[in-house]
Amino acid sequence: MIQCLRLLNVKPLCGVSGCGESSEEESSPRDKLQRNSKGLADFCIKNIDQADFGRREIEVAQQEMPALMNLRKRAEEEKPLSGAKVVGCTHITAQTAVLIETLVALGAQCRWVACNIFSTQNAVAAAVVEGGVPVFAWKGESEDDFWWCIDRSVCADAWQPNMILDDGGDLTHWIYKKYPSLLKRIRGIVEESVTGVFRLYQLSKAGKLCVPAMNVNDSVTKQKFDNLYCCRESILDGLKRTTDVMFGGKQVLVCGYGEVGKGCCSALKALGAVVYVTEVDPICALQACMDGFRVLKLSEVIRQADMVITCTGNKNVVVREHLDRMKNGCIVCNMGHSNTEIDLVSLHTSELKWERVRPQVDHIIWPDGKRIVLLAEGRLLNLSCSTVPSFVLSITATTQALALIELFNAPEGRYKQDVYLLPKKMDEYVASLHLATFDAHLSELSDDQAKYLGISKNGPFKPSYYRSANTHTHTHTHTHTHTNAGLSNCF
Amino acid sequence: MIQCLRLLNVKPLCGVSGCGESSEEESSPRDKLQRNSKGLADFCIKNIDQADFGRREIEVAQQEMPALMNLRKRAEEEKPLSGAKVVGCTHITAQTAVLIETLVALGAQCRWVACNIFSTQNAVAAAVVEGGVPVFAWKGESEDDFWWCIDRSVCADAWQPNMILDDGGDLTHWIYKKYPSLLKRIRGIVEESVTGVFRLYQLSKAGKLCVPAMNVNDSVTKQKFDNLYCCRESILDGLKRTTDVMFGGKQVLVCGYGEVGKGCCSALKALGAVVYVTEVDPICALQACMDGFRVLKLSEVIRQADMVITCTGNKNVVVREHLDRMKNGCIVCNMGHSNTEIDLVSLHTSELKWERVRPQVDHIIWPDGKRIVLLAEGRLLNLSCSTVPSFVLSITATTQALALIELFNAPEGRYKQDVYLLPKKMDEYVASLHLATFDAHLSELSDDQAKYLGISKNGPFKPSYYRSANTHTHTHTHTHTHTNAGLSNCF
Amino acid sequence: MIQCLRLLNVKPLCGVSGCGESSEEESSPRDKLQRNSKGLADFCIKNIDQADFGRREIEVAQQEMPALMNLRKRAEEEKPLSGAKVVGCTHITAQTAVLIETLVALGAQCRWVACNIFSTQNAVAAAVVEGGVPVFAWKGESEDDFWWCIDRSVCADAWQPNMILDDGGDLTHWIYKKYPSLLKRIRGIVEESVTGVFRLYQLSKAGKLCVPAMNVNDSVTKQKFDNLYCCRESILDGLKRTTDVMFGGKQVLVCGYGEVGKGCCSALKALGAVVYVTEVDPICALQACMDGFRVLKLSEVIRQADMVITCTGNKNVVVREHLDRMKNGCIVCNMGHSNTEIDLVSLHTSELKWERVRPQVDHIIWPDGKRIVLLAEGRLLNLSCSTVPSFVLSITATTQALALIELFNAPEGRYKQDVYLLPKKMDEYVASLHLATFDAHLSELSDDQAKYLGISKNGPFKPSYYRSANTHTHTHTHTHTHTNAGLSNCF
Amino acid sequence: MIQCLRLLNVKPLCGVSGCGESSEEESSPRDKLQRNSKGLADFCIKNIDQADFGRREIEVAQQEMPALMNLRKRAEEEKPLSGAKVVGCTHITAQTAVLIETLVALGAQCRWVACNIFSTQNAVAAAVVEGGVPVFAWKGESEDDFWWCIDRSVCADAWQPNMILDDGGDLTHWIYKKYPSLLKRIRGIVEESVTGVFRLYQLSKAGKLCVPAMNVNDSVTKQKFDNLYCCRESILDGLKRTTDVMFGGKQVLVCGYGEVGKGCCSALKALGAVVYVTEVDPICALQACMDGFRVLKLSEVIRQADMVITCTGNKNVVVREHLDRMKNGCIVCNMGHSNTEIDLVSLHTSELKWERVRPQVDHIIWPDGKRIVLLAEGRLLNLSCSTVPSFVLSITATTQALALIELFNAPEGRYKQDVYLLPKKMDEYVASLHLATFDAHLSELSDDQAKYLGISKNGPFKPSYYRSANTHTHTHTHTHTHTNAGLSNCF
Repeated sequence: MIQCLRLLNVKPLCGVSGCGESSEEESSPRDKLQRNSKGLADFCIKNIDQADFGRREIEVAQQEMPALMNLRKRAEEEKPLSGAKVVGCTHITAQTAVLIETLVALGAQCRWVACNIFSTQNAVAAAVVEGGVPVFAWKGESEDDFWWCIDRSVCADAWQPNMILDDGGDLTHWIYKKYPSLLKRIRGIVEESVTGVFRLYQLSKAGKLCVPAMNVNDSVTKQKFDNLYCCRESILDGLKRTTDVMFGGKQVLVCGYGEVGKGCCSALKALGAVVYVTEVDPICALQACMDGFRVLKLSEVIRQADMVITCTGNKNVVVREHLDRMKNGCIVCNMGHSNTEIDLVSLHTSELKWERVRPQVDHIIWPDGKRIVLLAEGRLLNLSCSTVPSFVLSITATTQALALIELFNAPEGRYKQDVYLLPKKMDEYVASLHLATFDAHLSELSDDQAKYLGISKNGPFKPSYYRSANTHTHTHTHTHTHTNAGLSNCF
Repeated sequence: MIQCLRLLNVKPLCGVSGCGESSEEESSPRDKLQRNSKGLADFCIKNIDQADFGRREIEVAQQEMPALMNLRKRAEEEKPLSGAKVVGCTHITAQTAVLIETLVALGAQCRWVACNIFSTQNAVAAAVVEGGVPVFAWKGESEDDFWWCIDRSVCADAWQPNMILDDGGDLTHWIYKKYPSLLKRIRGIVEESVTGVFRLYQLSKAGKLCVPAMNVNDSVTKQKFDNLYCCRESILDGLKRTTDVMFGGKQVLVCGYGEVGKGCCSALKALGAVVYVTEVDPICALQACMDGFRVLKLSEVIRQADMVITCTGNKNVVVREHLDRMKNGCIVCNMGHSNTEIDLVSLHTSELKWERVRPQVDHIIWPDGKRIVLLAEGRLLNLSCSTVPSFVLSITATTQALALIELFNAPEGRYKQDVYLLPKKMDEYVASLHLATFDAHLSELSDDQAKYLGISKNGPFKPSYYRSANTHTHTHTHTHTHTNAGLSNCF
Repeated sequence: MIQCLRLLNVKPLCGVSGCGESSEEESSPRDKLQRNSKGLADFCIKNIDQADFGRREIEVAQQEMPALMNLRKRAEEEKPLSGAKVVGCTHITAQTAVLIETLVALGAQCRWVACNIFSTQNAVAAAVVEGGVPVFAWKGESEDDFWWCIDRSVCADAWQPNMILDDGGDLTHWIYKKYPSLLKRIRGIVEESVTGVFRLYQLSKAGKLCVPAMNVNDSVTKQKFDNLYCCRESILDGLKRTTDVMFGGKQVLVCGYGEVGKGCCSALKALGAVVYVTEVDPICALQACMDGFRVLKLSEVIRQADMVITCTGNKNVVVREHLDRMKNGCIVCNMGHSNTEIDLVSLHTSELKWERVRPQVDHIIWPDGKRIVLLAEGRLLNLSCSTVPSFVLSITATTQALALIELFNAPEGRYKQDVYLLPKKMDEYVASLHLATFDAHLSELSDDQAKYLGISKNGPFKPSYYRSANTHTHTHTHTHTHTNAGLSNCF
Repeated sequence: MIQCLRLLNVKPLCGVSGCGESSEEESSPRDKLQRNSKGLADFCIKNIDQADFGRREIEVAQQEMPALMNLRKRAEEEKPLSGAKVVGCTHITAQTAVLIETLVALGAQCRWVACNIFSTQNAVAAAVVEGGVPVFAWKGESEDDFWWCIDRSVCADAWQPNMILDDGGDLTHWIYKKYPSLLKRIRGIVEESVTGVFRLYQLSKAGKLCVPAMNVNDSVTKQKFDNLYCCRESILDGLKRTTDVMFGGKQVLVCGYGEVGKGCCSALKALGAVVYVTEVDPICALQACMDGFRVLKLSEVIRQADMVITCTGNKNVVVREHLDRMKNGCIVCNMGHSNTEIDLVSLHTSELKWERVRPQVDHIIWPDGKRIVLLAEGRLLNLSCSTVPSFVLSITATTQALALIELFNAPEGRYKQDVYLLPKKMDEYVASLHLATFDAHLSELSDDQAKYLGISKNGPFKPSYYRSANTHTHTHTHTHTHTNAGLSNCF
């Protein structure tokens, strides 16, 4: 996966979600004693008084996360997480709040902490605390705060976690290091991020993984939504919010035609841009051709581009030499991978002047007056300058909830101390829970048809090995190689 | 024309352009004496100190308005407006600043005033003043301020206008009423808005128009860009900035398939929405069908719509009965005409609760808890919640500049005391000035080919009557009636 | 109008409609006495025995011409053409057969003749005769036959026409020349073609038009369908049937971005081609840009084009110099205007070898072995190599039927001896009759809304001058000049 | 794979390729002694005299098969198939002729036979024979002829095959049964079809596969092209050639949203149809939603459909109950799997009347007069009624050629007696050979970038397990399950 969606809720530009939290005081939340309206004091957040505003944001998010709401309804009586004590470490946003409160509705006791020092929506944290879940997180933590919060989330009087929901692996890491004895009680780890999954595979390889773990990152549904569809939605949004640029007739150069590139190209073409593609992989290049895009080398079209968008997952795709040849006003941004795709170092030289014209928008000015418009300092555009639809996050969140339920309720022996992909059938179940949003009605196989196809009437409808590879994108091979190895164990 | 673009620069939601002007003081600009760096005091704006920030916004706008910049270059020596004294009344935004400064570059002396009490970008006004042009305008004028400013813009020591550039007709009205003697010196009026043009035709009809006037509103290029293309760009932007909604798979109901509706439908379909259309005109309905949209009555699809967008130019298109039947979470907004399309009165009743969840976003809550998401209180969505590309405004601004040049330089007798459309050839010239942006290269007719077609090599390439009617949209007939008066002979 | 749709039924390539008529005998139909099953001998066609096959083709066409079928139902009792004696001169195809038989169902007596010596579908002619309508036409008439047939269609014992339905003006011309006395009885002429309309305007200009005439060619609905939508459908079909070419990834050069060019570009882009446009008119060029096409000169992209399609209405658009620079295998065809757009003369030189590889497909071979693939010898591609949907023809045919009804029933004095466009309201009625095909449901204006818009609840919904100019295409100005004569007053 | 492209060259409708072979004599080719111009008599085809016409068709095909032509050039000196004796059993069409002659150019000796009794293009067979390759095939063989030809192709004086190129497995089967001793000399089998591959896996499972075999069917490139892109091209073509139907505004129901369904939906939507989808798999259904299609049950939309297209790979998807409820004129066709998807049996009942209105087009007439238009009797539409672009076939043919080269030249021990997929890198090589067609220019990784990604600069760029699963379609699991097992052996 190229796009690191776990960070996508940061909305520095328009700051809609920040409206309730503008007057950030100086004192550290750690120095402050607060209580929610029911007297709970076991939490540490910015300001419990922002709970009302946060509740409103959560309610807005609920509307676009019908699968979780659906899950709440279905499981109201059953309480499949009854007895589960979940410690969670994720971004703390309206959407994760919907997840947390769903877990609670399903019977779980939760404690929560942020996986990122900047991304916490303080008002949402307040609302979750007001709802009764201890949260340890605020926007703008220090490194020290970060680990202090994680520590506090794990340890509580008379409460020990038996499930871990992690995003990035820091919580898992801390428990391994600080509270190894807890691991005996842990019935499973659910991990969402590329990095966290990679760490788990390393543990497994080293024979040190002592808990079953579920790799949520590589589910089919998540892959398609986090990349192709999400980028189709967010590329236009990110460019508009930062530059108000008109798309019609503009010449756009998209570097990379994996899922992210496909999503960007499709949206830009649809709005009337003339799109060029660069590729290194001949198969992706052939797809780009057949989809109606000219495939050229960066150097061949760089002079005429109005926008350059990197989506390769590689490094130094756009370098100084290219930037030197771009025309005045060219917009440069990155939808791909961390902040390596554009060679920023080459732009921090004395002859170039940087001018911040808007938040997240820098003009880099050449000696001859030429200006290049750099967005988000080369970091992920949609992380920085657009929002990601709650619906997309809903798919990941639902997968996480189902993974927790599966691991918590699995009979002894179904899962060993290894990394697993969510069973195909659950992947299909997550998808089916989201169909109601579109008022989509599935057809059903007759007995006869199922027999003809040699599959069960209720799915899975595709073989299990489809899951990790339905896309043809730039992915680090190691995560998958290992994954597939694990598969042979589980099914 | 449905879309009233002259208001489109208001950006209350994201307020990017407002960054430099947040600390609005209490005292009225009328009570304040200010001077620009060259000592000029003949102006009245919020704060001259914001000039630097405004200049930056103007520079950003210049990049997307190449035709005006081009005009500056071409006319550097010629100065076709040398001797022109232009009093202008428009929105005061970065884009109009580019226009004003182009007129100055072409030789004109200008004085400027706002046509709207809310839309002035204070920092831009400051930059224009710093550049030497007297401006009388600030954001948040009172009614009294408004006319005071207009009055101040007209009168100056030893300066009397000989050209009027108006948007809405208020300036023209004021001069007619207060300074009729000035009209003798006025060589022409250039008017952009539907309303202003209508007023001019009424004057003409009544035999009271004593100055040649140019109707800029109905030029082909403007019509296409202000409606079809501009709405294609802004509908997605407006919806995203307010609601972060995902478009893929959503069922959207677009009321009206004129140019505005066509633009909206095209963009939404391209992003994966399922779009339904309502229409009253069978020809537009047939176009919608052929373009792949189901044409149904509002009542037939209202229950399943995720979004309802009005683009009819009519009133009470969406009424309480429809709103009662919408599903929870349905987004309702208006791209059409002022704020009449949604019956807002029916929503201000005691049993419905209004809740403002974000700027420009209200939840209207039914007794059973159903929430309808109303954007911009039913006013134009893109006026309130998105920006309009500078490029689109560039076309209008260029047309205005050319109209001024034409009227100012026309030989005696070419224009009488009537309302004119810009000659076809100038319309084509405006278009040609914008082709460079797209690096588009026009072909040229050979002598032989021109002869074959019976036209001049240099255009106009289409008959003049094409100009006002290349679209099949909802337009008030009166503006056109005059233009095509001859038609009444034929039928 | 560029596309001459009246010729489009010729299907020489696939010859589906020719299946029943393969064994063409030698003897002329003029030498043969035939009778239909009811004893009628007053006709002259190829072979009455083909009637069954022709009837099947007519039945197929009826399915796609619901408006005419609808008209039959509605008018069953009313018989608005009762007393009408229509002499018609059109292509004789399954679709015109549906028109003829509709006129009969509405009460008219008809006699029919072909407007083209090649386009008659013999079997269809037989079926129409078997149905009781005298037809004088066969495929492959000589010039002499052509006029003989026209003469026979006009004159019959005790039968004199009082209405003319013409396509091209030859019938009208013949009556003017040979039977001027008949004109006194004629209540109206309905003319479909550009050429025929032009002739009528000339007559009118010369003061010689002594009958009211209806110009069907310039109705809004016909313009949109015959050009934009029809070309969108037929460009792919014509290319596939002749060359089996794959569209995905191919570089296509479309010359001209009027309605025909727009239709071609839209379809080709949708199927994955990379499309370039050439234009002489800056307004059309700007539209092409905004729609996502690079606008370049022919010479700039000629080397890389896989296909070149002319849609300009001009002559010598593609000349030898361009052809010399095309790459091997480049496909060249014309969707525009007669056969002038490609300079064929320059290809008939001794150093180039022509090789017919399939019907309508020639390879032109350069001395170095390069092959250019020329389709339909530069004549209209969709005339020669594809079919036009019956639905499109249905719109024209319905308009013709309504024009006949209008002229036949109009009260004394409504129409003078001039050329008229179909009233706007009828244009809208034609459209509305076709909506049922799409199961489209029109909305209706409330009294209040109609009043607000200042129009009638039942239309017309747009001002009448919209009709002739809703497109921005390459059209010969003369046909319109008359219609909008009044315009010359304004400027 | 659903689409069985190996049959796609049959062109019964338009019969372009049949032009040279219309006068089919009565006598069996087996009774006739013919010689080519060089005296060769070791062949059995319809008529050697048609060679010239066939050669022209081959030359046309060559233009769209640049990869093979490229391969010829590159390998001119190297002759990598020198010493190879290939017996091939495929459809005999212009495109396979290009493949055969490429193998010869690479050094192979070939003998060829048809894999289907109907699909041979007689003229092409003649041209191949005239070129020196013995062919045993004609259009309209009997069952007995079929096996007689196969037998003749295998056995020749002093010639024994050492490579097999098969399509369907009949040739392989015959050698296994009749000439098992030959298998010792065979260095490899290359098999293209689903069926043939399935047979090979069965042999392998049973321990009876005694030769390395290459599964060409499941290469990434072939999958994408044969399904998604090919169906996008051919669905429109097939419908137009048979019914001349207009797509704009038509309501189309596509059953199944795998690769085939995706291709069909994309093309139809692009041409203005309103498309509905049915699905059983929630993941595919969710994709359809996000792509803008309503997902409904067949029974919910059957009444309003103008066309119903099956793409499921399942059986009895459209049954009598559905057909009874369709509206008059509804077109029904199959793009999916053999002829099982539409329940034809239910239509062969006494109360329904069948009427053949055109080749491949039947009207089925209900007692009340309703007509359903059934295409190709429910067999694959594009097999029967359209052509498949040579370019698509080029990809398969190139893959076959490379597979032959690989197996023939592989060092002892690289391939065991098992079924293999083409190495990923070769898949990429096939793709790269086709990029020239699009004038596409690949970018190259720098050493640094390759290191960063952990891959080789020259590919493969994706992990090998990507190959068989880049699509999410309805595929029989067995072919893949086994395939993947095989994979673990080879890489």
